[in-house]
Amino acid sequence: MSLTVAFLGLGAIGAPMAAHLGRAGHTLTVWNRTVQRATGSAAAAAGARVATSPADAVRGASIVITCLPESSDVAALLNADGQAMLQALEPGVLFVDCTSGDPDTSRRIAADLAARGVDFIDAPVSGGVVGAEAGTLTVMVGGTAAALDRARPALESFAGKIVHCGEVGAGHALKAVNNALLALHIWSTAEGLVVAMKAGVTPQVALDVINASSGRSNASMNLFPERVLTGAFPRTFRLALLDKDAGIAASIARGQKGASPALQLAADLMRIAHLELGDEADHVEAVKLVERWAGVELRQ
Amino acid sequence: MSLTVAFLGLGAIGAPMAAHLGRAGHTLTVWNRTVQRATGSAAAAAGARVATSPADAVRGASIVITCLPESSDVAALLNADGQAMLQALEPGVLFVDCTSGDPDTSRRIAADLAARGVDFIDAPVSGGVVGAEAGTLTVMVGGTAAALDRARPALESFAGKIVHCGEVGAGHALKAVNNALLALHIWSTAEGLVVAMKAGVTPQVALDVINASSGRSNASMNLFPERVLTGAFPRTFRLALLDKDAGIAASIARGQKGASPALQLAADLMRIAHLELGDEADHVEAVKLVERWAGVELRQ
Amino acid sequence: MSLTVAFLGLGAIGAPMAAHLGRAGHTLTVWNRTVQRATGSAAAAAGARVATSPADAVRGASIVITCLPESSDVAALLNADGQAMLQALEPGVLFVDCTSGDPDTSRRIAADLAARGVDFIDAPVSGGVVGAEAGTLTVMVGGTAAALDRARPALESFAGKIVHCGEVGAGHALKAVNNALLALHIWSTAEGLVVAMKAGVTPQVALDVINASSGRSNASMNLFPERVLTGAFPRTFRLALLDKDAGIAASIARGQKGASPALQLAADLMRIAHLELGDEADHVEAVKLVERWAGVELRQ
Amino acid sequence: MSLTVAFLGLGAIGAPMAAHLGRAGHTLTVWNRTVQRATGSAAAAAGARVATSPADAVRGASIVITCLPESSDVAALLNADGQAMLQALEPGVLFVDCTSGDPDTSRRIAADLAARGVDFIDAPVSGGVVGAEAGTLTVMVGGTAAALDRARPALESFAGKIVHCGEVGAGHALKAVNNALLALHIWSTAEGLVVAMKAGVTPQVALDVINASSGRSNASMNLFPERVLTGAFPRTFRLALLDKDAGIAASIARGQKGASPALQLAADLMRIAHLELGDEADHVEAVKLVERWAGVELRQ
Repeated sequence: MSLTVAFLGLGAIGAPMAAHLGRAGHTLTVWNRTVQRATGSAAAAAGARVATSPADAVRGASIVITCLPESSDVAALLNADGQAMLQALEPGVLFVDCTSGDPDTSRRIAADLAARGVDFIDAPVSGGVVGAEAGTLTVMVGGTAAALDRARPALESFAGKIVHCGEVGAGHALKAVNNALLALHIWSTAEGLVVAMKAGVTPQVALDVINASSGRSNASMNLFPERVLTGAFPRTFRLALLDKDAGIAASIARGQKGASPALQLAADLMRIAHLELGDEADHVEAVKLVERWAGVELRQ
Repeated sequence: MSLTVAFLGLGAIGAPMAAHLGRAGHTLTVWNRTVQRATGSAAAAAGARVATSPADAVRGASIVITCLPESSDVAALLNADGQAMLQALEPGVLFVDCTSGDPDTSRRIAADLAARGVDFIDAPVSGGVVGAEAGTLTVMVGGTAAALDRARPALESFAGKIVHCGEVGAGHALKAVNNALLALHIWSTAEGLVVAMKAGVTPQVALDVINASSGRSNASMNLFPERVLTGAFPRTFRLALLDKDAGIAASIARGQKGASPALQLAADLMRIAHLELGDEADHVEAVKLVERWAGVELRQ
Repeated sequence: MSLTVAFLGLGAIGAPMAAHLGRAGHTLTVWNRTVQRATGSAAAAAGARVATSPADAVRGASIVITCLPESSDVAALLNADGQAMLQALEPGVLFVDCTSGDPDTSRRIAADLAARGVDFIDAPVSGGVVGAEAGTLTVMVGGTAAALDRARPALESFAGKIVHCGEVGAGHALKAVNNALLALHIWSTAEGLVVAMKAGVTPQVALDVINASSGRSNASMNLFPERVLTGAFPRTFRLALLDKDAGIAASIARGQKGASPALQLAADLMRIAHLELGDEADHVEAVKLVERWAGVELRQ
Repeated sequence: MSLTVAFLGLGAIGAPMAAHLGRAGHTLTVWNRTVQRATGSAAAAAGARVATSPADAVRGASIVITCLPESSDVAALLNADGQAMLQALEPGVLFVDCTSGDPDTSRRIAADLAARGVDFIDAPVSGGVVGAEAGTLTVMVGGTAAALDRARPALESFAGKIVHCGEVGAGHALKAVNNALLALHIWSTAEGLVVAMKAGVTPQVALDVINASSGRSNASMNLFPERVLTGAFPRTFRLALLDKDAGIAASIARGQKGASPALQLAADLMRIAHLELGDEADHVEAVKLVERWAGVELRQ
């Protein structure tokens, strides 16, 4: 089934997602704040129309997909003076937010959209740039089953797995939780390897053992061997975004009035790492702050 | 090469290790504090001599292997009044401590043994009861390469992987670090699943997504699906021991004068969980304290 | 200047505050959820009218004062079905919220009231029951200077000190911060005294030294000598409320996107203590959880 | 009673302590690693002999007092090659260690000294440079009552208060606990003031209220008004030393196998602040790291 899709936000993840939508035969319009990223995008090369504004992008679309840094950016697009994107959305449109956002803001956006007859689902993705390019992203969806069903033909063009998580905001909550775990595992593995190294165990040996034992994680099995021990630290996912996600998870936990010492620690450590290492640092570079405080480097 | 081996400590892990040593053709003597566990052991059934005391156990042995709850137990066996195990060790013996112990105590033990001409290696194992029974344990060795080489024929009877980590204490340090990571991952995954659940995501859906994403760990991939969501919580490794191990890792980190907020948190949380849930609780039952504080249960 | 005042919430702090208002000559109406606390109050005894509902209470009042457990209770009073208190407020009324509330909810309430021409200030108090009875409370005010000036004649009847903190919400923020510090100082002092005690220093000696040294706080100088070492633990301020306040401070900190490990820890520890010790426990009883985990009691 | 006293370690605290001993009429020999601090000291000016080595210093002394950065420095002085201070101590001497040291090392030192017939007490002081110059220090003593009685005539020359805490190590433990509380209160007050400031409350107003309320501490009542809000940050007590003390308290707590999240946090935060701010920073400058992470300054 061919859809008329507007895609807003052609970042490292959004650009290949949009390209998949175009290749799947949907009628596609793209928009990006920096227009050059839109005109030079693979989607545009494959025939997508490049919109001149968010309001222009969504005209005539049956599905609007956003993939922006955070929920406040989505809210800003909808309500910005002169952009009038909210006003440009026609009743019956489906709004799919692939941003790694926060549930509270999404629920407010959903209410604003509902008042105009527009359905909303949050649909953050995991899988990174590699998954986006391969079209194998995992999509975590919050919203009604009916809305998800309407979105499926679009989502399937870039997804390997689509999971209905719950009501509006549930997708964002799960994405934030996943990323908070990632954050804490990166940090704790770094602390552990530093302790082992100072006790005389090389990082390679330590990882070799941990990865054959119970302390292993995605961080120890993939990130440390490929990125830390090699010193490569490729910039694939910004620490600033992991900081934001860990902060969302911690904030949800605080709002639920539970005890959440581990999630709170993850949020504070990512916040500090982001502040100390800067906006351009990759998320795995948080390890460098552990190293700085330890006075050693975890290299092979 | 057949060795004369004394094995002290026939707990859940030690008993199958001793049985493998007997099956491998070594001349074996076993001892256990509760003598019934020795007389009723698989090793005894296969022909091992049951010693009447630690001192009796080590007489004539070329290799002495200990597998006890903690390093202080090893020190107590060596120095206990009337046991005289230290005095019963002949120069040239190799002492292999498979306890999940602490480096400081092991270095003191090693020095005491060295004064009697006895070599020491620390050789804690990972792999759990399943690995012990299958003879596929990972052994983390601290000590000289020469001492490790002498121990290999014994270790190989129950090991799938033998790793030389460094000097005396390095094996203990790495084991403690691995288990501290395990502890923190169990706890953080529980916190994360609680947050997701309160946001409307069932634990199954949350684990399904996390295990396809970057936040996965051994805890999320194996322990939660098999033990938590099922409510099975089999008692395979006591929380009291994980508490001890996390405490060792935190203590090493503190002694190294590094910053180690994640390891310290792991130690305090395991300590609290152990205190609240009791000596018999399994390590995965730490999740129950997260659940108690959250007012929800992570069951399918 | 005599005012017509409605006072809603005659708890341990609110009841003596209302009594002071009556004694100061203001025309007073009181309301409490449990009506017996209103009819039996000192304010009623001194001539205050007892209202039958919140809407009844505020009729004709020029100043409405609330003193409730938390901001959501204030919002509920205003908006509850059938209570119609919001509708009963006439334009020009001044709404003074003495609840230890949270800034976000207060800003929403203030906006709702502003739409009806009603000014709002948040005015939480410190000083406890003793300060409330003595009429020497410290009042922390958020709102405009003009609104504060209108409230002064009422506030002065129970205040020893009135401080203009900033815009709406600033009073709540500062109250939450003060109480989070109180919470952390109670807990940290307990941890420290336990460590000293296990090192052989009696709590009296330890407090004697700390209170002559740099580690002293209101907790060590007043709460521990009077309430902990004596075992008295009088119930003057519920742990449930300190938990709420520490949670507000932590939540504000998280929302400001700062790093706040100490405030987050305070919130999680108070949350846990509240959960473990129950709704009726006094705030200083948090010490009992430290003692439980330590296996010692800090008594003289 | 006039004593023959050797005083080793003429730092910011030690120098005025030694001067008081000389003024009190004791026969005094002083030593300092940097000899110029000894020759130029007030004690030397008042007639104290300047020793050429630790061994030279203690010859003929009935009381030896050390005031060094940490316990390992005391151990090093005693055992250093060629210094032979341990050998120079005659049986019957009393060794008084005013270092802010750690109990474990002190117990080892005490055992070594006991083997030579030398008694040991730990006697760390609080009161800072001001208290040292005024001769009003609080001295926390660990050791036997008899040894303390022998030390009194010396201690009284610089003490305002002498407290017998318990066995050897008890003085160190209590000093470490006091300083860990100081550390945590400085940090938590900074976090709290930052939150209040971002909520619109100036640091002066916030401190004014907190210091009239339950969240006050020595930090809020003295350090912040005098040193932080003024921007003065005088260098009176190095952050490096507070880091060491908080680390000692955390290490004792860990060794006692209690749960000590607040003390562990204090230790990690001071460690990080020391690493980030350098060896020369004053302890109150830890506030600058909170400010750096918050992007605001707490100045009037």
